[in-house]
Amino acid sequence: MKAKLQTPVIIVNFKTYAESTGNKAIELAKKADKASKETGVNIVVAPQFTDLWRVAEAVEIPVFAQHIDAIPPGAFTGQVQADAVKETGVVGTLINHSERQLKLADIEAVVRLSREKDLVSCVCTNNPSVSAAVAYLQPDIISIEPPELIGTGVAVSKAQPEAVTDTIKLVRKVNDHAVILCGAGISHGEDVSVALKLGTQGVLVASGIVKAKDPYTVLREFADSAII
Amino acid sequence: MKAKLQTPVIIVNFKTYAESTGNKAIELAKKADKASKETGVNIVVAPQFTDLWRVAEAVEIPVFAQHIDAIPPGAFTGQVQADAVKETGVVGTLINHSERQLKLADIEAVVRLSREKDLVSCVCTNNPSVSAAVAYLQPDIISIEPPELIGTGVAVSKAQPEAVTDTIKLVRKVNDHAVILCGAGISHGEDVSVALKLGTQGVLVASGIVKAKDPYTVLREFADSAII
Amino acid sequence: MKAKLQTPVIIVNFKTYAESTGNKAIELAKKADKASKETGVNIVVAPQFTDLWRVAEAVEIPVFAQHIDAIPPGAFTGQVQADAVKETGVVGTLINHSERQLKLADIEAVVRLSREKDLVSCVCTNNPSVSAAVAYLQPDIISIEPPELIGTGVAVSKAQPEAVTDTIKLVRKVNDHAVILCGAGISHGEDVSVALKLGTQGVLVASGIVKAKDPYTVLREFADSAII
Amino acid sequence: MKAKLQTPVIIVNFKTYAESTGNKAIELAKKADKASKETGVNIVVAPQFTDLWRVAEAVEIPVFAQHIDAIPPGAFTGQVQADAVKETGVVGTLINHSERQLKLADIEAVVRLSREKDLVSCVCTNNPSVSAAVAYLQPDIISIEPPELIGTGVAVSKAQPEAVTDTIKLVRKVNDHAVILCGAGISHGEDVSVALKLGTQGVLVASGIVKAKDPYTVLREFADSAII
Repeated sequence: MKAKLQTPVIIVNFKTYAESTGNKAIELAKKADKASKETGVNIVVAPQFTDLWRVAEAVEIPVFAQHIDAIPPGAFTGQVQADAVKETGVVGTLINHSERQLKLADIEAVVRLSREKDLVSCVCTNNPSVSAAVAYLQPDIISIEPPELIGTGVAVSKAQPEAVTDTIKLVRKVNDHAVILCGAGISHGEDVSVALKLGTQGVLVASGIVKAKDPYTVLREFADSAII
Repeated sequence: MKAKLQTPVIIVNFKTYAESTGNKAIELAKKADKASKETGVNIVVAPQFTDLWRVAEAVEIPVFAQHIDAIPPGAFTGQVQADAVKETGVVGTLINHSERQLKLADIEAVVRLSREKDLVSCVCTNNPSVSAAVAYLQPDIISIEPPELIGTGVAVSKAQPEAVTDTIKLVRKVNDHAVILCGAGISHGEDVSVALKLGTQGVLVASGIVKAKDPYTVLREFADSAII
Repeated sequence: MKAKLQTPVIIVNFKTYAESTGNKAIELAKKADKASKETGVNIVVAPQFTDLWRVAEAVEIPVFAQHIDAIPPGAFTGQVQADAVKETGVVGTLINHSERQLKLADIEAVVRLSREKDLVSCVCTNNPSVSAAVAYLQPDIISIEPPELIGTGVAVSKAQPEAVTDTIKLVRKVNDHAVILCGAGISHGEDVSVALKLGTQGVLVASGIVKAKDPYTVLREFADSAII
Repeated sequence: MKAKLQTPVIIVNFKTYAESTGNKAIELAKKADKASKETGVNIVVAPQFTDLWRVAEAVEIPVFAQHIDAIPPGAFTGQVQADAVKETGVVGTLINHSERQLKLADIEAVVRLSREKDLVSCVCTNNPSVSAAVAYLQPDIISIEPPELIGTGVAVSKAQPEAVTDTIKLVRKVNDHAVILCGAGISHGEDVSVALKLGTQGVLVASGIVKAKDPYTVLREFADSAII
């Protein structure tokens, strides 16, 4: 588990972008793998469910799912069960991304389920109060992402630094081991280095990498900026 | 498309059962492939998202997804996008299963999306009125499944024959080409032959196969009963 | 029931606007009552749940709920049960508004429930195909509202006349008695008269009335335009 | 606010039971009002949205809503807006009842909204971890209700005393002012007194009162058992 959580960490959420689907998911993951190996910075990729097996086969860097449902094995159709995700070779999962929010009881259940299955849990939050509430559930990673900045290119670390520092302050009161990330609008290397200076241990990014003309170059820029 | 829709058809919904997850999904799909080839009956398997690629690689029978979200490629996290599903080699999808019900506008959108992507659409319904409403949306397959019978071992074809015959009557008034199936509680070969005698062109099954001690034998029994 | 459905009809959805909440809901409903009596045009008001009793006490025109849940009386918290709605004096309900969409099985259930409770059912739809599917469920009213025009001030009757005429054509193939309305962007008397000329029997409006500087004057303008 | 929160407190959730709808909601609320005045125990009633105005008019005891949506005034249909609820005379609201669960971000938003509107917020939780997470959001009341016991007549205070005491322990680490209640299965006066002995400041009840043959007698029994 330790290796999966090595910090600083850059988690790349592939979402359902055309540029990160199917064969393109594998290509992009390989670029992340290369940038990670060259820089020593931990880069995690989170492709779509249908691509998890192939991406996990293709790269050595950690692969996360984008979501897991709060269900045991059984009579559930069209849902995402933890054991099925685990068997693809995935080592962790995003939980409660602002584009896939969960009921509170389900967040608690999926964090617990992840712990039982030895999956790294990364819970996304929208503000410092919610981050503090989540801290109590003992996820491995908490990532603060103000929804209004997602996909804008306006970086949370610059536009709302206090959302980040307040999250760190409130979380640390009750939880001294969770990795804290920030996300939303991260599009330049400087956004990453500012995020780290604010006290985070990395970033959660998506369009900044996936929609970049040259994702490898941006991945390198982000990774280089994460080393200080 | 024609081959995918060859009737009679038996669709096996793998749900998220432990017995049909990961490597076991592949084993089970291979048994279905074998039973299909031996009998000439069209058997379709619908594994979990994470297993679609590997199952589609492993077998020649049609593979369906269990669900697709009503979204284009883009900024959606933890959702199931049609292009990503298509790229796994899948040829169709279940839509609106009673364990994964959709808003009406989303059913219409996913049926339309499936048509555009050349994916077979199989919309599940809970009663004859809903079947008739769905008929207008022109899906390739309509499967009536009274929710109260799902997983009970009490077959719809025996317990509620009128739900099946009323569905056929109402659907045929407005749609003469959709394949009509029934599901819920199908657990014996006789349940399949009764379903066909009622006028359906096949069945949608899950636990009857997946949880069987010897799934291959039951698959053969179902397929043999579908030939008359 | 007949009186409630007298056409042409103008249904005013109060939504949760500040201008149509609490005491202001009563004032606005009284203006609608006055405009209806003066013109003879059937005007229906649909206030929030919390205001239904008071509005139904205050006016003689028909009052609709904005939504009903597909539940019987029982152990449900924070939901809207048909009997409770009925007891306020309400005579009908909106169903599946684009801001409160339902699963297909629930639309069918609420339309049926409304029929049992002698409540007028008005199902909202987003396009002609969905309208046609809904037509089979036999609601009293079908209202087509392209979601992208809602609240824009760009009237459906002018911007997408074919969405309206296609809806009428498709619905009438299978249902010759449902009242057909259109909505979204209706803000001038002319939008109403154009809607009627397209073949509808009225309109579903919201911000055009509720957010108007002088709602009574606009109500009169709409009602006058509905008389030809 | 203080009076509304006077402890011990018994909150009666009317749900959507036939026995607590419309005129019967008023009758039941009056019985609660009587029992409260006779015993001095704070009894709160939580009727359906449609009954809030009439109940708040009819009684002097505090009235709560069963739910509020995380929305501002505006273009929302069929939802429950805080200002509309407030204007009925309601002084508080249940939030996240197990039959009406919310996304975490929405719980946080509704607790904050309640504070702004001077409404008492009572957040329901399903286990001690979730209770602790909620404690950070600073609601006025936290009520632990193991969902598997709701409506069973098997009281949480007797069947799962550790769920109650663990909740108290965890909540008090971070929040020393929230009122802590327990609910689920409370059906005898003894269930109430045991709940208080475990350290709670009251109970959240529903069917135990609403479905009782003689609700007034049970209300008196509960209230008497709350005085020690």
